[in-house]
Amino acid sequence: MIARAWRRLSPAQRAIVERAERVTAEEVAPRAAEYDAAAVNPVESWRALWREGLLASAVPRAYGGLGLDMPTYAAVIGTIARGCSSTGMTLHMHSTVLRFIDALGTEAQKRRYFREVVEHGKLFGSWGSEPAVSQSFTFLVETAIRKNAGGHVIDGVKYFCTMAQGASYYMIWCARDGSSDIAKALQLALVPSDRAGVNSDGKWNTLGMRATFSPTVTLADVHVGDDEVLGPPGGPMGIGVIEVFALGYAAIYLGIADGALTFAADYATKRVVRPENIAVAHDPAVQRHVGELVAHLEAAQHVLERCAEQWDVADAPLRGVLSSKAKYLATEAALHVTSRVIQLVGGRGAYKDYPAERALRDVRTATLMSPTVDRMMETIGKHVLGLGAGMFNVGR
Amino acid sequence: MIARAWRRLSPAQRAIVERAERVTAEEVAPRAAEYDAAAVNPVESWRALWREGLLASAVPRAYGGLGLDMPTYAAVIGTIARGCSSTGMTLHMHSTVLRFIDALGTEAQKRRYFREVVEHGKLFGSWGSEPAVSQSFTFLVETAIRKNAGGHVIDGVKYFCTMAQGASYYMIWCARDGSSDIAKALQLALVPSDRAGVNSDGKWNTLGMRATFSPTVTLADVHVGDDEVLGPPGGPMGIGVIEVFALGYAAIYLGIADGALTFAADYATKRVVRPENIAVAHDPAVQRHVGELVAHLEAAQHVLERCAEQWDVADAPLRGVLSSKAKYLATEAALHVTSRVIQLVGGRGAYKDYPAERALRDVRTATLMSPTVDRMMETIGKHVLGLGAGMFNVGR
Amino acid sequence: MIARAWRRLSPAQRAIVERAERVTAEEVAPRAAEYDAAAVNPVESWRALWREGLLASAVPRAYGGLGLDMPTYAAVIGTIARGCSSTGMTLHMHSTVLRFIDALGTEAQKRRYFREVVEHGKLFGSWGSEPAVSQSFTFLVETAIRKNAGGHVIDGVKYFCTMAQGASYYMIWCARDGSSDIAKALQLALVPSDRAGVNSDGKWNTLGMRATFSPTVTLADVHVGDDEVLGPPGGPMGIGVIEVFALGYAAIYLGIADGALTFAADYATKRVVRPENIAVAHDPAVQRHVGELVAHLEAAQHVLERCAEQWDVADAPLRGVLSSKAKYLATEAALHVTSRVIQLVGGRGAYKDYPAERALRDVRTATLMSPTVDRMMETIGKHVLGLGAGMFNVGR
Amino acid sequence: MIARAWRRLSPAQRAIVERAERVTAEEVAPRAAEYDAAAVNPVESWRALWREGLLASAVPRAYGGLGLDMPTYAAVIGTIARGCSSTGMTLHMHSTVLRFIDALGTEAQKRRYFREVVEHGKLFGSWGSEPAVSQSFTFLVETAIRKNAGGHVIDGVKYFCTMAQGASYYMIWCARDGSSDIAKALQLALVPSDRAGVNSDGKWNTLGMRATFSPTVTLADVHVGDDEVLGPPGGPMGIGVIEVFALGYAAIYLGIADGALTFAADYATKRVVRPENIAVAHDPAVQRHVGELVAHLEAAQHVLERCAEQWDVADAPLRGVLSSKAKYLATEAALHVTSRVIQLVGGRGAYKDYPAERALRDVRTATLMSPTVDRMMETIGKHVLGLGAGMFNVGR
Repeated sequence: MIARAWRRLSPAQRAIVERAERVTAEEVAPRAAEYDAAAVNPVESWRALWREGLLASAVPRAYGGLGLDMPTYAAVIGTIARGCSSTGMTLHMHSTVLRFIDALGTEAQKRRYFREVVEHGKLFGSWGSEPAVSQSFTFLVETAIRKNAGGHVIDGVKYFCTMAQGASYYMIWCARDGSSDIAKALQLALVPSDRAGVNSDGKWNTLGMRATFSPTVTLADVHVGDDEVLGPPGGPMGIGVIEVFALGYAAIYLGIADGALTFAADYATKRVVRPENIAVAHDPAVQRHVGELVAHLEAAQHVLERCAEQWDVADAPLRGVLSSKAKYLATEAALHVTSRVIQLVGGRGAYKDYPAERALRDVRTATLMSPTVDRMMETIGKHVLGLGAGMFNVGR
Repeated sequence: MIARAWRRLSPAQRAIVERAERVTAEEVAPRAAEYDAAAVNPVESWRALWREGLLASAVPRAYGGLGLDMPTYAAVIGTIARGCSSTGMTLHMHSTVLRFIDALGTEAQKRRYFREVVEHGKLFGSWGSEPAVSQSFTFLVETAIRKNAGGHVIDGVKYFCTMAQGASYYMIWCARDGSSDIAKALQLALVPSDRAGVNSDGKWNTLGMRATFSPTVTLADVHVGDDEVLGPPGGPMGIGVIEVFALGYAAIYLGIADGALTFAADYATKRVVRPENIAVAHDPAVQRHVGELVAHLEAAQHVLERCAEQWDVADAPLRGVLSSKAKYLATEAALHVTSRVIQLVGGRGAYKDYPAERALRDVRTATLMSPTVDRMMETIGKHVLGLGAGMFNVGR
Repeated sequence: MIARAWRRLSPAQRAIVERAERVTAEEVAPRAAEYDAAAVNPVESWRALWREGLLASAVPRAYGGLGLDMPTYAAVIGTIARGCSSTGMTLHMHSTVLRFIDALGTEAQKRRYFREVVEHGKLFGSWGSEPAVSQSFTFLVETAIRKNAGGHVIDGVKYFCTMAQGASYYMIWCARDGSSDIAKALQLALVPSDRAGVNSDGKWNTLGMRATFSPTVTLADVHVGDDEVLGPPGGPMGIGVIEVFALGYAAIYLGIADGALTFAADYATKRVVRPENIAVAHDPAVQRHVGELVAHLEAAQHVLERCAEQWDVADAPLRGVLSSKAKYLATEAALHVTSRVIQLVGGRGAYKDYPAERALRDVRTATLMSPTVDRMMETIGKHVLGLGAGMFNVGR
Repeated sequence: MIARAWRRLSPAQRAIVERAERVTAEEVAPRAAEYDAAAVNPVESWRALWREGLLASAVPRAYGGLGLDMPTYAAVIGTIARGCSSTGMTLHMHSTVLRFIDALGTEAQKRRYFREVVEHGKLFGSWGSEPAVSQSFTFLVETAIRKNAGGHVIDGVKYFCTMAQGASYYMIWCARDGSSDIAKALQLALVPSDRAGVNSDGKWNTLGMRATFSPTVTLADVHVGDDEVLGPPGGPMGIGVIEVFALGYAAIYLGIADGALTFAADYATKRVVRPENIAVAHDPAVQRHVGELVAHLEAAQHVLERCAEQWDVADAPLRGVLSSKAKYLATEAALHVTSRVIQLVGGRGAYKDYPAERALRDVRTATLMSPTVDRMMETIGKHVLGLGAGMFNVGR
């Protein structure tokens, strides 16, 4: 179905999405089940994306990247996630780090890091979550960055450290001097994976999104140079980049759900039952279920497309609203579709030989990423009620 | 919110929608409660629409009408329904009759009937429903049209005869010689309201859509001339006009729901409670409800817009799928929104002084119009499953 | 279906419910549509209930009443509401006032007021709502009761003054000296309907529950004697009577919904469509809808029964949880059933000749009564989470 | 919460449930994660159940079993499933085979097989599913049993052969002489696990219910003696035993969901977030989610209890309705609860260190067992509409 989506893309944009479709079909999707079972980063799939230039989706053209606009970008990650959720998600995390570099970095930083991506296929992870913090409450970061003689020192504990196995750099979300006034203190640092003081517990055994490999990492007395810090304290706030995370999640959820539904529709046309000797697709009940799921999935997809199309002209608070709408509807639709698809297929829907069960696991896991459903509804509601507000509760 | 909808209209298209907004605000909406209470046709509102040229929305420009494309048309009827459901709905029924005339009529018929609209502000109703037929089963018409010396004779009983009070012509859905092979027998005849043999029971006392005034009418030995019959038997099938009904319903449901939600959001910002002395809009629970409703309403609206945009290039079966998608999602969203809006407002949500309760009544009533939810889901499902099919089960 | 409910009643309890069924079928239900249309109190129906002793359902046997236990009581009001929502609801409001008299009144007050009910068929209303208060926020009462020479004086404005047309006494919810510390200040006074200073605006034009006639009433310098006040300030709190309101609402919602669903099931077995010439009940889609609605309605009914059965041994906070469970599930089920029933019937489901549309209007209106859905979910959740709490936020 | 369920059990019945609770807590639950990961039958847990007499739950007392009535039985399997879904489910499959033996077996068969259970702790599996059959269509069995010189020969292919690894006997669902008139041809045979001709493909890699180990098995020229066949052809139909499957599933789904919800509620009271330094249980949004889930879970539980209580006096068609109600509501509630519980816990909800993700996988898998949701709704609907019908479409 996704082939019929994103109808407003130009031929040039569409060509890039088709490139993503091709590499997904040929290289990414076939490896997805294996990476999932092993819970290791999809290193080979990343390499394939690099060969196609897609690792540089968010690198500006001036630096050798594709510099994709938001609709094309969302179409690309959704397409890849349709074949392998973890590959799509890690590409998105990586790309969003690149957007922060583009927004906050110095010219030297941009040249340096973008080249790492374009020329060497390096990956960038983003580590924000922490054990004692809930973003459905107040947005807080306890990992502290402090100035010292040679630059800065970082101390803290991070949860859900995506790509801890396979990325080359990690963007660490810190609070300057451990301040809780996060709107002024938030600061991002880029730490190479082999930097001393970075210790992963190496554990990642989850329901889904297993190939993101996102263990807990302790940062103890981690030194970073001045040129490894992105912008000033408070810099990441209000620039409309944080909001890209949730918009991309929406594209990923819908991609996964679309893959599952396509599988189920195909299965229904092929599974013939006796004594009727007809495909189950001829059962009106099956038709209704398929119809209902398609309708809701397309509705969420249309909202995502509209939100992506408005991105460029939207300021940061509006981007918060747009990504909340897109992610909220994608969450509801993808959870519904991936659970119901298994029911539609029947007993064999739970077989690991088929992709439906992995889709459910991945969607149920990926939709836990911030912001929560309640928070998204509040963000949309506040906007409509004229009570301007961003996506997060910051400070007090 | 609807003001922000239909973003893809050109300035010229938008000007027409704004004309509809103005006349709705100034003349149509203020009379809605009264027409509802009295259950009489919104004759004054029709007149206002005529003055603005909107009664001729579906009359081709060559005949002096606006000749609106589908997106603009849907925006117009949704806008009007937002102020007065029955005015929007009757305009839509009328306009769809005009589309049948345009598709099936002779040049003489077009000239004659379109002039009645453009110059004299005449209304056209469409009478299809019958007592013993359920369109969720097989599409059947028992009202018979038979050739006689001077033309044709019609006999039958029609239910839900919209505008029986106020239109000048009624398009009667007939079966040639009473045949049940409806795909070949369906024929439409235009009967003037004062023609002998047309007898209404004059009863219309319903939950909602009260100003459509749609009683039961008996047609006994009703004579029509050859020039009052539109096209050949079977002519109305497969030409992609029947499908316009459901697409328009979707626009109407969403217009009504949008009006109700706008009211509730406004109410929430104005209702201040003690001892807190703050507007209830500051309650996170209120924000969540508003956010949830807005998200689902917009999703349905986006689907409607996409379907309307594809209309021109879609053949009849695809139009059946498009209008099923639009109507299905609009039905679900509008029922949900109009019921929940009352809850959001609280006890006073049930007051007739406020528009919310009327919106619920109108949506619950208007969403009963064919095709049913089950049938729409099947139509969408069949399409996705590659089992081509139109909106109706025709004969066997 | 309700006939099969309340299976645990003893023969004696069942006999009383059957008495309620009989009087409902013979006298209450036949008048329901008329009272609804006229929006006047169901005075004749009250009289019929009085003749059957049911007006004294909550009067202890020692005072000549039926002294019904909670399951029998809930079965009785549900049964009556099944035939006429407003009669069931007003009986419940009246009965709950009698429970307050029983819990807080002096022996003299009990003798006096209970005799009015038993011997003279008098009705008691309860007026609690106020314009500037939302019980989903803090439970506050602004109507003040102040001591004066001859007794007390009451001043305030009340909304939703049920039975303002037809009851003989109104129990006014007051705050002693206008204090906002409602836990200590809440006090109830019984005001005869003809007492000076009680002025109704006479307006009640609503979606549903029209025969409760519940206008806005201003109480200006209303004098009441010491013997017209029930118990001390703060007396009504924590005694487990307030919680009866919501439990009774649950029974009423389910009674109404059951009546609507029974009608629809009956309709489906009788409506025969052509060309198939079979009742629509044979359509699997119809069977599914009926099955789904019955299952959810019965589930809510079972919860209500369990909650009613536990009532006697539950303390006030637990009663808050029990009535929240019962009312929450009844609200969801009744809204769903009464809306879907109309869809099941089809176009004619909106006709006022049939009871389905009234059921929807009454349920949508009656479910607005406090506590709100959000508040009920919180009450249940707090209980499960070990955070003890009653139904209302009282003071701070 | 389940501790508070099943309130109507006598002390003697309750003692048995408490025995199940104890052995579940001490021996069954602690092994659940390991059996799930390895996808092997819970052999040690079965042994523990045997020691407690619970393997003989469905063996009549006259044969040394517990002879549990339906409410106690459902409480027992629900309690065990709460700790380990697969142990609860396999006990249920096993017990239902024993019910068939009790209903159809000769005295000699009963003595022989029941002793195997009571004295030797043997397990019995039931193999009914087949590759080309969908029970949502027509109930058909293609595995044929044919008379031969020494007894009978069975040929066919079975899917979802539960306990293929660990049971001692498998009850094979056959059609006498391969007849498609299943109402007259259905016959059950008990095949020892080591009988020649029984070949498993040894594959079982699924989303959930992994420790049921249910591969595909081919039966080729499998010989069974006359004393290994249960009753005559058609014997299993209409005796009210088939219907026990679905009732037990309901108890299992609710047990699993209850375990997950209890975990989440406990987690919410223990997880403290900064900077607020309060448990997330204090968040009203968390309270609402918990409240909503508890309410729906309890409603389904009440329906299950009512249905189990009515079992003894219900005939086979009514048992079909009762088990459809119980399973339908349990399916909806358990799917909703186990998905939402993960959301409630947040990111860590997907960790395999916690039981929530396994609960979701097991419920999503176990709810695929026949009959389907659509079929259950139809069964309930037909009953209410007076169109008597059992749970399955049998022949035509």
